[in-house]
Amino acid sequence: MPYVNIRITREGASAEQKARLIRGVTELLQATLGKNPATTVVVIDEVDTDNWGIGGESVTARRKTGK
Amino acid sequence: MPYVNIRITREGASAEQKARLIRGVTELLQATLGKNPATTVVVIDEVDTDNWGIGGESVTARRKTGK
Amino acid sequence: MPYVNIRITREGASAEQKARLIRGVTELLQATLGKNPATTVVVIDEVDTDNWGIGGESVTARRKTGK
Amino acid sequence: MPYVNIRITREGASAEQKARLIRGVTELLQATLGKNPATTVVVIDEVDTDNWGIGGESVTARRKTGK
Amino acid sequence: MPYVNIRITREGASAEQKARLIRGVTELLQATLGKNPATTVVVIDEVDTDNWGIGGESVTARRKTGK
Amino acid sequence: MPYVNIRITREGASAEQKARLIRGVTELLQATLGKNPATTVVVIDEVDTDNWGIGGESVTARRKTGK
Repeated sequence: MPYVNIRITREGASAEQKARLIRGVTELLQATLGKNPATTVVVIDEVDTDNWGIGGESVTARRKTGK
Repeated sequence: MPYVNIRITREGASAEQKARLIRGVTELLQATLGKNPATTVVVIDEVDTDNWGIGGESVTARRKTGK
Repeated sequence: MPYVNIRITREGASAEQKARLIRGVTELLQATLGKNPATTVVVIDEVDTDNWGIGGESVTARRKTGK
Repeated sequence: MPYVNIRITREGASAEQKARLIRGVTELLQATLGKNPATTVVVIDEVDTDNWGIGGESVTARRKTGK
Repeated sequence: MPYVNIRITREGASAEQKARLIRGVTELLQATLGKNPATTVVVIDEVDTDNWGIGGESVTARRKTGK
Repeated sequence: MPYVNIRITREGASAEQKARLIRGVTELLQATLGKNPATTVVVIDEVDTDNWGIGGESVTARRKTGK
């Protein structure tokens, strides 16, 4: 019954990569806490780099300066 | 003053359906807990089916296999 | 398969009131969008009034001044 | 190490405005709580006005009636 | 730089189990998407069973009826 | 009408510090984007250090090793 929200920058993750994330997190919750995979929900949010900040600046700005 | 976040898969909900959701949740919070509708916020997130997983696989994959 | 997060201030909502919220939101999603109640998840977060702000001040402060 | 999620309606915020928000929130957390800017994450979600409700109606509907 | 929020019912997960979840999710994001572990944030929310609903009823109610 | 969620580790933030955060974020949204303070909502979540991970380990573990 867990709910997992994974938030990443939108930088070209493929459907296959996202499917592996979903499968992996679901298995991890079963292995670690015995959670039922059938009712484990995983939601992935892909966020534009203008809208993601770390260290006080956007990821867009960081990419430009090679960070 | 409540904040409600409704997350659903992006599968063609109309503006009218979303308006009914907003109205319905707001009324429910007033009827159940006496919350002031004027300051009740409802935010609906529509999520691509590639990005929503249940049972260890994406909704995209589930739709293909008739689940 | 929807996921609904309801956030309210912690001011004594009873288990019965919360059960009515859960039932009501689940029914609303079925009536409005045809969502399957069996996989609709509702999570209620109760937040201390010191930690909830509106209008630039905490709900604790607002309660003291009769707002 | 804080995580801040700012949710606003999608109404034309520029990259520059969003960069100022990111910088401002990061500085505020340092000034107020001594949080390390290097690991402060800020994520801005812009939400369609059809999907944002207040007072029981969508922001789209409110804009039409001059609210 | 990912942010992961894992929400589970509060039913006695130990600090060791939660540490394994944190490690496992962080490794999965590195293996699947090449994300830097140093800036991957994982936050676990444990929610009272009265406040978690599925199938229109609280987990507290479901536990009583053996679901 | 913005909604801001600030998540920090639970390490003794005072009510006064949290009030300053609420006021500061609300003012920032007005100054940067012209948002109405009266309907700006700020919610602060304080999370146990066992439940917050960065770099693949919990903050509890990091504090013990002087990180």
